[in-house]
Amino acid sequence: MKVVITGGTGFIGLRLARKILAGGMLAGPGEGRQTVDEMVLFDVVLPPERPEGLDDRVTLVQGEIADRAAVDALIDRPDIAVFHLASVVSGGGEKDFDLAMRVNLDGGLNVLEACRSLGSAPRVLFTSSIATFGGAAMPDVVGDLVKQTPQTTYGMTKAILELIVNDYTRKGFLDGRSARLPTVIIRPGKPNAAASGFFSGMFREPLNGIDFSIPVPTDVRHPVIGYRTVVDGIHALYEADGAAIGDDRAVTLPSTSATVEELMAALGNAAGGRTLGTLDVKPDPFIMDIVKTWPQAASADRAVALGLPQDASLEAIVKAFIEDYVDA
Amino acid sequence: MKVVITGGTGFIGLRLARKILAGGMLAGPGEGRQTVDEMVLFDVVLPPERPEGLDDRVTLVQGEIADRAAVDALIDRPDIAVFHLASVVSGGGEKDFDLAMRVNLDGGLNVLEACRSLGSAPRVLFTSSIATFGGAAMPDVVGDLVKQTPQTTYGMTKAILELIVNDYTRKGFLDGRSARLPTVIIRPGKPNAAASGFFSGMFREPLNGIDFSIPVPTDVRHPVIGYRTVVDGIHALYEADGAAIGDDRAVTLPSTSATVEELMAALGNAAGGRTLGTLDVKPDPFIMDIVKTWPQAASADRAVALGLPQDASLEAIVKAFIEDYVDA
Repeated sequence: MKVVITGGTGFIGLRLARKILAGGMLAGPGEGRQTVDEMVLFDVVLPPERPEGLDDRVTLVQGEIADRAAVDALIDRPDIAVFHLASVVSGGGEKDFDLAMRVNLDGGLNVLEACRSLGSAPRVLFTSSIATFGGAAMPDVVGDLVKQTPQTTYGMTKAILELIVNDYTRKGFLDGRSARLPTVIIRPGKPNAAASGFFSGMFREPLNGIDFSIPVPTDVRHPVIGYRTVVDGIHALYEADGAAIGDDRAVTLPSTSATVEELMAALGNAAGGRTLGTLDVKPDPFIMDIVKTWPQAASADRAVALGLPQDASLEAIVKAFIEDYVDA
Repeated sequence: MKVVITGGTGFIGLRLARKILAGGMLAGPGEGRQTVDEMVLFDVVLPPERPEGLDDRVTLVQGEIADRAAVDALIDRPDIAVFHLASVVSGGGEKDFDLAMRVNLDGGLNVLEACRSLGSAPRVLFTSSIATFGGAAMPDVVGDLVKQTPQTTYGMTKAILELIVNDYTRKGFLDGRSARLPTVIIRPGKPNAAASGFFSGMFREPLNGIDFSIPVPTDVRHPVIGYRTVVDGIHALYEADGAAIGDDRAVTLPSTSATVEELMAALGNAAGGRTLGTLDVKPDPFIMDIVKTWPQAASADRAVALGLPQDASLEAIVKAFIEDYVDA
C-alpha cells in the first residue's frame, strides 16, 4: 500500500514516517494489514537536503495542499493510508485569516475529496487540536464531550475539519479519525509561528545554552504531550478498530496538565548538572491573548480506552528530547 | 438601509420580510436603528406570482447562493442587514451530499465573504438548526453548551456555519448571530424534502380534510416551535445587544418538547368541532433513521435571557395556523 503524509517533512511528519517505515505494515482499506511499498511526504516547502532515515520507498513532493490537482496526484491508489498533518498554525492563522481558510479548510477538503474519489474508503488520520476549545463558557477541563467554541481561526478550521471527517466517515466515503492534539513539546529546531511555541522554546533554548523569555506568567496551566507520545498516538488511532471509535471520530490524545512553573521544574530535574541558558518571564500580549483562550487540562477517557499511549512524566519528555536532539 | 433575505420567498422568509416591512426599522451596522428603504428576497426559485404583502421597497431576485457573483451583487451597500435563510434541507442533504456542501457551506461562505468585503461589519442573522446535535453521546436535552456531533450532512453544514459566523464576528468582519431553530410547525403548502416535514403534515393535512400517515411511532419526542415564534425569535436575535450574546453567537431558540401523541392531542383540542382527515402511523425507515438522531428536548436559557419569545402552548400554535392558513 501507499502512505501519504501531508506536512510530511515537518517535525511530527518525519518522525511518523520513520515509525511507519520501520513497522512496514498498516491497516488497509478493507480488512487486514498491508505492506507499505510506497510513501510520499508532501509539503509546501521541502528541506534543502533529504532527511535521514528515509529509505527508497519514500518520495518527497513539494506542493500546495490547497491545489486540488496536486492533492489528486498524490492520492492515486485505492490501497492507501493518508495522514493529513498539513496546516497553518495558530499564530499564523490569526495573522492571515484567508491563508488559514485556504490551507486548513480548502486543503482539508481537497484531501478528503481525493480519498472519497478512490471508492475504497481508505483510512484517513487528520491532526486536529485542543485549540478547537475555547470561549467564555469553556470549562477548565475539556474533553471529547465538551462543546467546541474555538477562539482562533486555526481552532475554528480544525473544528470544522473534525465535523467533515465525521460526516465523510458516516457516509462511507472514507474511514476517518481525527487526533485532537494537546500542545506538543519539545519541538527541535527554530521557533515557528505557533502561539504555543514557547512551550518548546522554554526547554530547547536553555538546553542549547541560550537564554529564553517565557511570554506568559508561570502560573499558566496547559495540557502538553511529548512528541514521541504524539507520534505513537497518531499511529495507534490510525490502527484502532473503527467500531470502537464510534460515530465521533475525533479523539483527544492523552496529555499532562502542567503549569509553566512545573515545566521549569521538570527541565531542571531532567537536565541534571548541565549548564542551561537562563529563563525569565516577559509577557507578550499577542501570545497571552491567544493562550488565555485555551483549556487548562484535557481529559482523554476515550483515547485511554482505545489504548492510546500517555507520557510517563514531564521529566521523561525532557529526557527523551535530551537523548534525541541534545546529546545526539 | 437595505435588507437581504436569502431563501426569502420561503415560508419563514416571507413572514420575516412582512414583519420587517411593517416595523420599518432595523439595528445598524454601527450605532442606532435605521430606516429600511430597500429589501431583496433572494431565492433559487421564485413563486409564479408576486407574494402578497410586499410593498414597492421589495425586489425578488432569482439566483444560486453558491454563485459568488450573484451574492456579491445582492450585498452591495454598507448599510445592510442580511438574513441568511437559504439552505438545502435535511432529507435533501442526505440524498445529495455535494448539493448540501455547495449550497449550505459554499453558499454560506459567499454570504459571509460578501458582508466582510463591505467593510461596515453589518449584522448577519444565520438560521442554524438543532439538527447540529446528534450522535451516540448526545444527551436527551441539548442546549447551547452541548457538544455538536451532527448525524446528517445538513446538520454538519449548519454546525460549520455556526463556527464560521463566530469567527467572522470575533475578527470584526461582521456582527453575526446564528438562530438555532427547533423544528418549525406548522408549515403550510406542500410537503418539502425535510425529514421533519411530518411534524407539519400531521396538522396541515387533517385540517384540510386529508388523511395523513405519520412516519414515526407516537412516542417520538422532539422540540418544536411555532412559525410565528420563529419569525419573532429571528427578528429579536438580530436586534439583540451583541455584547449580551457574547462570544458564542449561536443561540438555540426556545421550543416545546412534545411527543407525537401530545401533538395529536393539541390538534384535536385546537380543532374543536371541525371534521379532520384521519391520522395513522406508517413507519418510514428513511425518516426514522434521521429522526432518531435528533434530540428530544432543547434548553434555551440564553435565548430566554436575551428576551427571545416562546410559544404559549402547543394548542396556541395550532390555533394560529387555523387562523392564518385554514380559515383565512
